[in-house]
Amino acid sequence: MLPIAMTDRQRPKDILHGEEEIVAVLAPLAAGAPGAFGLEDDCALLAPEPGCELVLKTDPVAEGVHFLPTDAPADIAWKALAVNVSDLAAKGATPIGYLMALSFPEAPTRAWLTAFAAGLEAAQTAFGCHLLGGDTDRRPGPRTISITVIGSVPSGQMVRRGTVREDCSLLVSGSIGDATLGLALAKDPALAAAWGLSPEETDYLLGRYRRPQPRLSLAPALRRHAVAAMDLSDGLVKDAGRMLRGAGLSGRLEAAAVPLSAAARKVLAREPQRLARLLTGGDDYEILAATTVDQRDVLCAAAAAAGVPMTEVGMSGSSPWPADGGTGLGIDGPDGQPLAVGPTGWDHF
Amino acid sequence: MLPIAMTDRQRPKDILHGEEEIVAVLAPLAAGAPGAFGLEDDCALLAPEPGCELVLKTDPVAEGVHFLPTDAPADIAWKALAVNVSDLAAKGATPIGYLMALSFPEAPTRAWLTAFAAGLEAAQTAFGCHLLGGDTDRRPGPRTISITVIGSVPSGQMVRRGTVREDCSLLVSGSIGDATLGLALAKDPALAAAWGLSPEETDYLLGRYRRPQPRLSLAPALRRHAVAAMDLSDGLVKDAGRMLRGAGLSGRLEAAAVPLSAAARKVLAREPQRLARLLTGGDDYEILAATTVDQRDVLCAAAAAAGVPMTEVGMSGSSPWPADGGTGLGIDGPDGQPLAVGPTGWDHF
Repeated sequence: MLPIAMTDRQRPKDILHGEEEIVAVLAPLAAGAPGAFGLEDDCALLAPEPGCELVLKTDPVAEGVHFLPTDAPADIAWKALAVNVSDLAAKGATPIGYLMALSFPEAPTRAWLTAFAAGLEAAQTAFGCHLLGGDTDRRPGPRTISITVIGSVPSGQMVRRGTVREDCSLLVSGSIGDATLGLALAKDPALAAAWGLSPEETDYLLGRYRRPQPRLSLAPALRRHAVAAMDLSDGLVKDAGRMLRGAGLSGRLEAAAVPLSAAARKVLAREPQRLARLLTGGDDYEILAATTVDQRDVLCAAAAAAGVPMTEVGMSGSSPWPADGGTGLGIDGPDGQPLAVGPTGWDHF
Repeated sequence: MLPIAMTDRQRPKDILHGEEEIVAVLAPLAAGAPGAFGLEDDCALLAPEPGCELVLKTDPVAEGVHFLPTDAPADIAWKALAVNVSDLAAKGATPIGYLMALSFPEAPTRAWLTAFAAGLEAAQTAFGCHLLGGDTDRRPGPRTISITVIGSVPSGQMVRRGTVREDCSLLVSGSIGDATLGLALAKDPALAAAWGLSPEETDYLLGRYRRPQPRLSLAPALRRHAVAAMDLSDGLVKDAGRMLRGAGLSGRLEAAAVPLSAAARKVLAREPQRLARLLTGGDDYEILAATTVDQRDVLCAAAAAAGVPMTEVGMSGSSPWPADGGTGLGIDGPDGQPLAVGPTGWDHF
């Protein structure tokens, strides 16, 4: 075990002393979950509802990799939970609770952790779930928030990813590419002027990067009308390719059909070459769904009724995904010509 | 997002290229779990058995904090899963599956990850669970394995920690202090000679540090006969204090009653002052249980029948845990005098 180098005497008053002080700040987040035992047991207890199955996902986020050191603690917290809940939404599931392991190179200040807990409180209230348990440790390296989320789905109704079939309609929710523009703005605020964005448009794009909205309202419609679905975290092109390749199918995307926000369209009007980046940039946390063609309009209507539009952006094909390592996902550019997008999305290794 | 600095050209052949190659090495670990979908979906599906509740725990381990850089990858894997499963055993639960997030500062070699997967395979076979899903990312800092384990317990029978009552018997499973001696030996192999240990005794202590054995066979006996239980990860003194303080009760431990292995007794014969370290050293992954006095012998008999002895080491008292910040846990030394053990166990912050 590593020695703790900093003595109490060296610590400013605002630094939290000991794991128990950290737990005390987080305990209110567990108040609504009886099986969390106020974070005072070693494990959490979860009583699944009859007729339901559980959907589970773990997706840690780390400073400098998934969020910026300059991001506000409340935004970091929101995003850490949202990226996990987003997966549940795509599976047609409803969030129940989450476990959270925090790793910090130094003990957090009370101010930082309190702001972090406030962001988490806002997120869990919006998503309808509670903190069930977790762990804290100190280690070198970036601050890390490792969340495992648990959701519930009616038995047999989880929406899979690899079940896309031939000649399905591919649809996405909301708009694509906002978060990658938001990230660019967070790193270089001068871009707002270069792109001619209003303060409202700038805030909108930053918000799309910092506070992704898992599309939970779409879950019932996906369960009823989708053949397959996934959330978009690593870029539309990479994720759509992943869905198709998992089923051994080729497919096509039509770039001009991809829904863009007014702010993104404004950026694109100045820098048309940024289109490829919007399609590959990642962090969208929208949903990619496949439906049979005869269910497409039904799904779109149900999505609109749920308050989140879905738009057809392509089709799965009937030819197989190529075995030679090439891509089976063609992209038609706005000019009708094939669009080359370069590196297709995020890979850590 | 951080750029990936290393190009394919610079990578030796043995380095795994891309998240998909990493997943391919791990996929056999998920073969026995239908809801893992071969690690090819974004989420895992778990169908709880009727009449059961789920017990959940997350406890990440990081290089340099929870394991040594020199530890073998198979041992690292075993321990990463064992420390989580150990909590389930103490709650009276049976493991079902786990999610695992891997973080590495550089892509692992195929040899490293294959050995790691072999250790995990051995552990999950021993513990009766399967890999359900997970995540991999690259980030600076120590190699980290973040496991969330899910177990099953008959409804209403999870053994809590804070439910210890006045005048309960406190018992521990197996033997205490071996792992802290094993860690000392792993860091300084010359200690084996200084302590007069045989190669078998040395290997035994190293094994207790590297390959903790969650006491799953005790789960049914704990459900039936324990008032409260927890696993011992941060040292007997700290963990017993935690259990008692959570219930607002004082208590006593009798050092001479604490069960020690033959190897630990040999060390202690040479270095009697090491006793305090054995009681506070942590990484035991034994079980601390509280029973009513009339159930003590029944629990001990059931534990013996399950192949893991349990030994009475103290009692909860009837006076409250002191409110002044002092300890409510007294320790009677082997000489009958109060034993001062110094810093009482591991705290990250």
